[in-house]
Amino acid sequence: MAHYKLTLAYDGTDFRGWQAQPKQRTVQSVLQEAWREITGEVVQVTASSRTDAGVHALGQAVGVETHSSLPPEKLLSGINAKLPADVALRAVVRVPDGFHATHDAVGKRYRYRIHSGRQRPLMDRSYVWHVVQELDVEAMQAAANHWIGTHDFASFQSSGSPRENTVRTIRAIEVKRGELTEQIRIEVEGDGFLYNMVRNIAGTLVEVGLGKRLPRWAAEVLAAGDRRAAGRTAPARGLVLLWVQFDEGDEQ
Amino acid sequence: MAHYKLTLAYDGTDFRGWQAQPKQRTVQSVLQEAWREITGEVVQVTASSRTDAGVHALGQAVGVETHSSLPPEKLLSGINAKLPADVALRAVVRVPDGFHATHDAVGKRYRYRIHSGRQRPLMDRSYVWHVVQELDVEAMQAAANHWIGTHDFASFQSSGSPRENTVRTIRAIEVKRGELTEQIRIEVEGDGFLYNMVRNIAGTLVEVGLGKRLPRWAAEVLAAGDRRAAGRTAPARGLVLLWVQFDEGDEQ
Repeated sequence: MAHYKLTLAYDGTDFRGWQAQPKQRTVQSVLQEAWREITGEVVQVTASSRTDAGVHALGQAVGVETHSSLPPEKLLSGINAKLPADVALRAVVRVPDGFHATHDAVGKRYRYRIHSGRQRPLMDRSYVWHVVQELDVEAMQAAANHWIGTHDFASFQSSGSPRENTVRTIRAIEVKRGELTEQIRIEVEGDGFLYNMVRNIAGTLVEVGLGKRLPRWAAEVLAAGDRRAAGRTAPARGLVLLWVQFDEGDEQ
Repeated sequence: MAHYKLTLAYDGTDFRGWQAQPKQRTVQSVLQEAWREITGEVVQVTASSRTDAGVHALGQAVGVETHSSLPPEKLLSGINAKLPADVALRAVVRVPDGFHATHDAVGKRYRYRIHSGRQRPLMDRSYVWHVVQELDVEAMQAAANHWIGTHDFASFQSSGSPRENTVRTIRAIEVKRGELTEQIRIEVEGDGFLYNMVRNIAGTLVEVGLGKRLPRWAAEVLAAGDRRAAGRTAPARGLVLLWVQFDEGDEQ
């Protein structure tokens, strides 16, 4: 058996999320089907982040155990040739036995994109949350700064896939305007994330950006330890998994 | 009767082009239907550029004659509310009687986007031509410089919608790398364009970018006055109409 780590990019728009489900088009199913076509082998792959329906990835990490003796570059080109236009395999590397894409990940970075302004988004409409009002980016950054570090993020965990331990470390949150002034990007990097955590962070920051709340409210939301204290869950389509980090600092 | 000029943006991916055709989803049909829903009036609108299937627009100009007494801002918000997600009305302005979006246009600017490199495009796959090889942008610009000015562009006119007079003025052609190195943008501005002219320009410049031809070949192609002398027609999806100019320099 050989273990491989695949780096996968996908447009989540037309997928029912990562995880294989009967009769649904999911990224996992599409990847496993392409793998089968190339190697003849039925595998169960494991992702670092089980992204929801509509969520995108530029650098999802996927672990596979295989009996195939095809070299990594053949797997890369062969599987890419079988994947549909909305999924692209970016890299295939051999990893030590026992590699686990979920458990061995030590860091991840996500980006959440907002399109703020009266004109509705067009070409990027599947990749942004459209907020009609102007947003105060400086206030959003000031709010986000309350969350950097190691904290109990229970207030930012949606129900549906609860974790007992809700303590996580956020290494960085950056709120920035894009090249086009109507684009706002929230990037969040941490050691791990709870269910819907980045989307709940984005929804909470927008409350501040709209001026409904002051930046220091962010500290109260965190301290509450209660999902109802935070803002709404921002829509899936604005979210993209940028990369996953494993030991030795190899960023994907 | 009042005359209006509409500025329209659309993602051409899921349209059979601009022009209304029986049983086809076209931009013209969708716009006329939205207009009817808001005003109750059946109109025939006219565009500055009858874009082909798959071609996009950020600033298409459209002329409408109407009996409606709705003010422009009501037309703008009402029609936008009825348009599907892949069409957006950006502006509605009253224009003098007799305005004709096709005949009164004095300039247009198009952008053609290429994604050059082995990694296939993902999020922007509907907006670029994927060319696997590296392209020499400087050579492409040197070739394009041969076409600036007033010339007979018969070599760049596809069959299908021939014009008797094939003399046009190209005011500018700029070939540039985007922020991401794999993106190459060709922008072409002129007083008018023949059928498929920008896509034929792009296809011809790629021959030079690949090193199959020297930049000075561009002068021979122009002089030949024969479509067969030029390169292939680049795919529709890379093309976007940026704006249309009318008298008095009002750029849309």
